[in-house]
Amino acid sequence: MRTSMATVCISGTLADKLRACADASFDGVEVFEPDLLAASESPEEIAALAARLGLTLDLYQPMRDVEGVDEEAFAAVLRRAEAKFRLMGRLGIDTVLCCSNVATATVDDDEVSADQLRRLGDLAQRFGIRIAFEALAWGRFIDDYRRAWRVVQQADHPAVGVCLDSFHILSRGHDPAAIADIPGGRIFFVQLADAPRLSMDVLSWSRHHRLFPGEGDFDLATFTGLIAGTGYDGPWSLEVFNDTFRQTDPGRTALHARRSLRWLEDAVARTAPDATASRHDFAMLPDSAAPSGIDFVEVKAEDTSAIEELLAQLGFTSRGRHRTKPVTLWVAGAARVVLNEQHARGWPPRLAAVGFEVDDAEAVDLRMRGLRVPRAYRRTYASEERLDGAVAPDGTEVYWAQAADEGDPAWVREFEHGEKQRPAPISRVDHVSLTQPWHAIDEAILFYTAGFALGLDSSTDVPGPQGLVASRVLTSPGGGVRIPLNVGPPVLADAAMPQHVAFACTDVRRLARSSRDRGFRPLQMPDNYYDDIAARFDLAPAAVEELRDLHLGYDRDDTGEYLHFYTRTIGEVFFEFVERVDAYAGYGAGTAPVRLTAQGRR
Amino acid sequence: MRTSMATVCISGTLADKLRACADASFDGVEVFEPDLLAASESPEEIAALAARLGLTLDLYQPMRDVEGVDEEAFAAVLRRAEAKFRLMGRLGIDTVLCCSNVATATVDDDEVSADQLRRLGDLAQRFGIRIAFEALAWGRFIDDYRRAWRVVQQADHPAVGVCLDSFHILSRGHDPAAIADIPGGRIFFVQLADAPRLSMDVLSWSRHHRLFPGEGDFDLATFTGLIAGTGYDGPWSLEVFNDTFRQTDPGRTALHARRSLRWLEDAVARTAPDATASRHDFAMLPDSAAPSGIDFVEVKAEDTSAIEELLAQLGFTSRGRHRTKPVTLWVAGAARVVLNEQHARGWPPRLAAVGFEVDDAEAVDLRMRGLRVPRAYRRTYASEERLDGAVAPDGTEVYWAQAADEGDPAWVREFEHGEKQRPAPISRVDHVSLTQPWHAIDEAILFYTAGFALGLDSSTDVPGPQGLVASRVLTSPGGGVRIPLNVGPPVLADAAMPQHVAFACTDVRRLARSSRDRGFRPLQMPDNYYDDIAARFDLAPAAVEELRDLHLGYDRDDTGEYLHFYTRTIGEVFFEFVERVDAYAGYGAGTAPVRLTAQGRR
Repeated sequence: MRTSMATVCISGTLADKLRACADASFDGVEVFEPDLLAASESPEEIAALAARLGLTLDLYQPMRDVEGVDEEAFAAVLRRAEAKFRLMGRLGIDTVLCCSNVATATVDDDEVSADQLRRLGDLAQRFGIRIAFEALAWGRFIDDYRRAWRVVQQADHPAVGVCLDSFHILSRGHDPAAIADIPGGRIFFVQLADAPRLSMDVLSWSRHHRLFPGEGDFDLATFTGLIAGTGYDGPWSLEVFNDTFRQTDPGRTALHARRSLRWLEDAVARTAPDATASRHDFAMLPDSAAPSGIDFVEVKAEDTSAIEELLAQLGFTSRGRHRTKPVTLWVAGAARVVLNEQHARGWPPRLAAVGFEVDDAEAVDLRMRGLRVPRAYRRTYASEERLDGAVAPDGTEVYWAQAADEGDPAWVREFEHGEKQRPAPISRVDHVSLTQPWHAIDEAILFYTAGFALGLDSSTDVPGPQGLVASRVLTSPGGGVRIPLNVGPPVLADAAMPQHVAFACTDVRRLARSSRDRGFRPLQMPDNYYDDIAARFDLAPAAVEELRDLHLGYDRDDTGEYLHFYTRTIGEVFFEFVERVDAYAGYGAGTAPVRLTAQGRR
Repeated sequence: MRTSMATVCISGTLADKLRACADASFDGVEVFEPDLLAASESPEEIAALAARLGLTLDLYQPMRDVEGVDEEAFAAVLRRAEAKFRLMGRLGIDTVLCCSNVATATVDDDEVSADQLRRLGDLAQRFGIRIAFEALAWGRFIDDYRRAWRVVQQADHPAVGVCLDSFHILSRGHDPAAIADIPGGRIFFVQLADAPRLSMDVLSWSRHHRLFPGEGDFDLATFTGLIAGTGYDGPWSLEVFNDTFRQTDPGRTALHARRSLRWLEDAVARTAPDATASRHDFAMLPDSAAPSGIDFVEVKAEDTSAIEELLAQLGFTSRGRHRTKPVTLWVAGAARVVLNEQHARGWPPRLAAVGFEVDDAEAVDLRMRGLRVPRAYRRTYASEERLDGAVAPDGTEVYWAQAADEGDPAWVREFEHGEKQRPAPISRVDHVSLTQPWHAIDEAILFYTAGFALGLDSSTDVPGPQGLVASRVLTSPGGGVRIPLNVGPPVLADAAMPQHVAFACTDVRRLARSSRDRGFRPLQMPDNYYDDIAARFDLAPAAVEELRDLHLGYDRDDTGEYLHFYTRTIGEVFFEFVERVDAYAGYGAGTAPVRLTAQGRR
């Protein structure tokens, strides 16, 4: 029995994974493309390492969305495939997994899919490569191995066969008996996985995944208003079965639960008829609009000099020291970074506070009081601006202050002995990524949505070398505030999941160059990443080489482009510099796994 | 807005929960019955504590399976209800939640349900109690609030109204608009919960929950055999997307993955035609039958005297000290407990090893070598029995030895200076409960099923005061070996989730009495637990009082009865003494939450 394993099955870098598979006496591996993209080794080094370890590289996977498309899209498929076939040549891999189209399929016609696989097969054959075509269980049109085999028969090409994956066949309950009708020589690859019979039936959903009002997707304001309208006069009671709340501090959970009802009361008061709301004492919270921007971010540490050095390289200007505290201010455009050494003995640099610019600071203050949010305290003297703030569930202090009509906010005047602000291609804070402890994420969502009226995006998972990072993004309506909340795998220590601040740039290429001239070295992105960019996007070779030279990340979608680079991590924080072209609203999710692997490298 | 919360929402004991709700300014709470059963306080004490804290007790919940049953079953419902209504009087609660029948409903007829609710209402009214009837989203017949309201209208009884729960209504996508047609006075209670839109679609199942062959529910031997039969000659490759394996040690996971393929190879070799198996080099592992019983359990500690004292109280006999090691042996019937003080500096008492009795030790040895299971090492001298063993994924050492034809196994003779074994009402080890680290459970299942041919039951969840404990049970065909594997909530330290050994008794009441006479004090079970037993089972009052007096747990199902008591926890281990009546094959799952709470008390 010749054995193999996909590198995606286990943790670590690609080289770690190869060593682990060899130590466990596997005969070969499937190379999972994202593992290669994030690797610092060249394809030739990977091939040589595998050879020394006695492993064959059995499969390159996955190549997605290759068939069932119109002719224009298919031209792009062939272009992308050729780049990947060349890469496979460098790796010495002769079989590629092509899975049935999920994202781009527009033509539900076996003839078309077969014709496109045949032409892909022609191209592959020139490179000595075989296409193993697999029906994904959730393929847009082709989702059954029997249909995939029919299409392969129609393609009738020696370089086109099928891949059989036990999960995709057995999870759907498809009878595997028809496998016996496929000649073994046309089965180019076999993937094995077991799985528990799982279904998210309503009972499991109810027993494990309920949330407090305001944290999920139910329209509870309407629901509650309807009941209130009947004249019901009993209590409004929470019944939330949730695995997390059952194991965490009951005092804290109860406060959080109580806050969710206060949010609901407000929501009902805003939607129910006056008579209904007043009969039930449904009281509104004070109105407060979402913040319009980030006033400042604060990094706290016993010694902030490594951060100062970095900010100077990146073109920030020191605005001096605070009148009464061991605190300095660094600015670039409207981005303000406060470095705080007060009461920080033993602290490595970490993101300690975020300030929001709001239209009506008093209204936010009243709303936070109404929600009984725990308050943050900063000592201020009579001559200083008062700073109102709250403590978020992860311990980050969140302050709010009146947005200045123009120019600097008033508190900036408390800093002395600074330099005159130099121009820099940096405009403001683009987003602040906050890692959340796994048990604080639901509470954090209520904190930011109920307290600050931020909106919430759906969840995405980012694979890193030590597990999946789940990410949910909070945004203000205008996009002035963007806060991705990330939850890492439970095995990771907090320090291994640093927070980060991203600054918006007017010209990120210029900043990358000028900061390099000042001695800055960005986080090093691997060559494989740029080879993939060249394969995926129709960029001029010189443009790709510029990205590679400057260690820039790149993404593009229908709305625009995203260019960005990262600093190294200092303590528990790092910085990102981003340029959004046109209406691009994402965060370069394709680059994040590569970044996570690069950050793991010493 | 009058606010309330079900005690099930948060962690801790019932008293902890009341304090947390009061501190968070809730007006009242719903008392969740399992919280009361596990509480050491009397109902009157709970009522007084709530009153002092300024909390109203708004609801008692849940009362299950009360309608849609035949007349004989309904007589039992009324008997049970009367006991609970008396209890509610002691608590001062005037509303009970009755949810639509899930388990025992046999009659799908609104008239019958309405009639039974009316008669239940008559009984409730005599106690000044109101029935709030709720349609569960997964009710057997009544699963829609509109139908529940129709039944309540038909019941037409002043003590019968509805409870509306946002989860049960909105999770099913039922239009809440019909709520407006219910007079508020007939809505006796409202429960609020939010929830994320969740579905275990095949994509999420595939991306997060795949397992290695042998750990899930797929028939991979047949699947693989079918492919082998086609003449396929490529590699057999694992592709397992699993959140756990993506974040744990890759070297260990790769070994575990490789073992799963060895298991599969064996399984295919046993099912595929000879020609197919030999062409693919599918080799069988040596046959080995499941163990027939537990040879011994070993507790290891720097100082085992507290365990010795406990075993003596429980009627075990000391068989003396090992010839060459600081190890003692305690026996009762065919139950053998080895206490090991060798190389145990700083260890609190903990379950370190389990010995299996097998029919062919050599065959097990060969099979374990074939599976490349890590071996356990014990120094043995020429004059001593050789002990073969393996290290389970949680670190427990598992040994196997030839079962003795009759009498003691040979290794018992290595113990000297012991007493003659006294008779005791203990026959053997009934089961060994092993707590598993959350990342080791899948590997452990493969270890015991592939290595020892133990069978696996489906999973059950046991709620404890600090979260849910998921339990899966491994058993040998004859029931001679039973090993529940428990996975606790991630927040709990290992020491908070002790392992335990249960001993089968011929007369557990006699053992409880005789051990009490020798100074033993069992884990104290609360009075509320016995009041519930009296309400649930048709036992003579004297029988309930005997259980209460001896702190015995009790369960009964269609197959028989289970009586048992627990010792206190010493270090990281405790013991249970059980008597199975007739064919009872469970573990008293109803008692486990009460036990978990009692263990948490000082």
